[in-house]
Amino acid sequence: MSSTPNTSPTRLREKVRTDRGLLDALLDDVRVAHVGIVDDGGSPVVLPMALARDGDRLLLHGSTGSPWLRRAAAGADVCVTVTAVDALVVARSAFESSIHYRSAALFGRCAPVPEDDKEQALDRLTDALIPGRVGELRRPTPRELAATLVLAMPIERWSMKMSAAPPDDPPEDVAGDAWAGVVPVRRRYGDPVPAPDLGEGIPVPPSVRSLPAAPARL
Amino acid sequence: MSSTPNTSPTRLREKVRTDRGLLDALLDDVRVAHVGIVDDGGSPVVLPMALARDGDRLLLHGSTGSPWLRRAAAGADVCVTVTAVDALVVARSAFESSIHYRSAALFGRCAPVPEDDKEQALDRLTDALIPGRVGELRRPTPRELAATLVLAMPIERWSMKMSAAPPDDPPEDVAGDAWAGVVPVRRRYGDPVPAPDLGEGIPVPPSVRSLPAAPARL
Repeated sequence: MSSTPNTSPTRLREKVRTDRGLLDALLDDVRVAHVGIVDDGGSPVVLPMALARDGDRLLLHGSTGSPWLRRAAAGADVCVTVTAVDALVVARSAFESSIHYRSAALFGRCAPVPEDDKEQALDRLTDALIPGRVGELRRPTPRELAATLVLAMPIERWSMKMSAAPPDDPPEDVAGDAWAGVVPVRRRYGDPVPAPDLGEGIPVPPSVRSLPAAPARL
Repeated sequence: MSSTPNTSPTRLREKVRTDRGLLDALLDDVRVAHVGIVDDGGSPVVLPMALARDGDRLLLHGSTGSPWLRRAAAGADVCVTVTAVDALVVARSAFESSIHYRSAALFGRCAPVPEDDKEQALDRLTDALIPGRVGELRRPTPRELAATLVLAMPIERWSMKMSAAPPDDPPEDVAGDAWAGVVPVRRRYGDPVPAPDLGEGIPVPPSVRSLPAAPARL
């Protein structure tokens, strides 16, 4: 992700993170994972899926219409990659300019969440997306639960890289007159837009009212 | 990505987009792609890479220290997936709540951009990340160019899905008193943070000053 080639193994090693707390913070900060899977011909396919961490497992939710989701549910090897883009690194050369990011790749196999655990897993996914929303909603119907596929993968094998350093220009560039610095990216929710069929007088609920106050975890 | 199972093929079909203009808009809106590749053991690996569209080809830039980048450069099959998360869809049930997104998967093989084309490709990547920055910077040195690996992939085989509809609740939920609507996500740049080693009196350049005025393309 660096705009620099990073040929130095030392610099690469500096980016590697092994702290589980940093991994959990990333997984709790991003709601969309990119899931890689291999097709029958041995070629890769990468698809986005909704993600929530539930303790030591990942919960993944996608369209049951997708053959890839069904393949993942059947226990194919997957790689679940989660990336947050945090800032632009504006260096004094194109070569040293880059992106602050956090990215983790988790490897393993998924299994469908069993029936007796599905309601709790769905609650977890919903509350990760819209904190507090579960308490405002009716419970899922048996038909809805039966029609829903949630995958779980244990958090076991993973690697994480994180880039968060200021621009690292060589002395001859630092001595010049080019600007250098970091420009953070802010993800925020905008104002809620009511559904066209919303009944009159139905107020925006607390869960949705609270969204713009915090960074968007999307 | 939907929080609903989407078992209906009709609904799935509604999400599929074949308009090249929509694909280009997505590719120009997002600077990080997730690239899938298959390892020697037949397992998938997904890694983030910087992305820019250059006409009918994708330019990809990552760490040359990565064995996966080298594998992609050697012509392994790849899937390059680009996803923009545009809004939360807050429905009257967890089942119908979902995410507005645009996601494209592009399939093919990469090749390293040849030496005589590399400088232009790097300019394209830099200006996609920080519009106008190339004109403010010194030119890359021959050593920097030699140390840089840019991959190109033709935009040929791709599929795109897009979800942009309001909540689609059944009549019995619409008749109830739960709120429904859409909450947009805004990606914006914050105030630039100067590098610790920035010389006194060096002003923020126009390219960086312009960033907060537009949505962050990250």
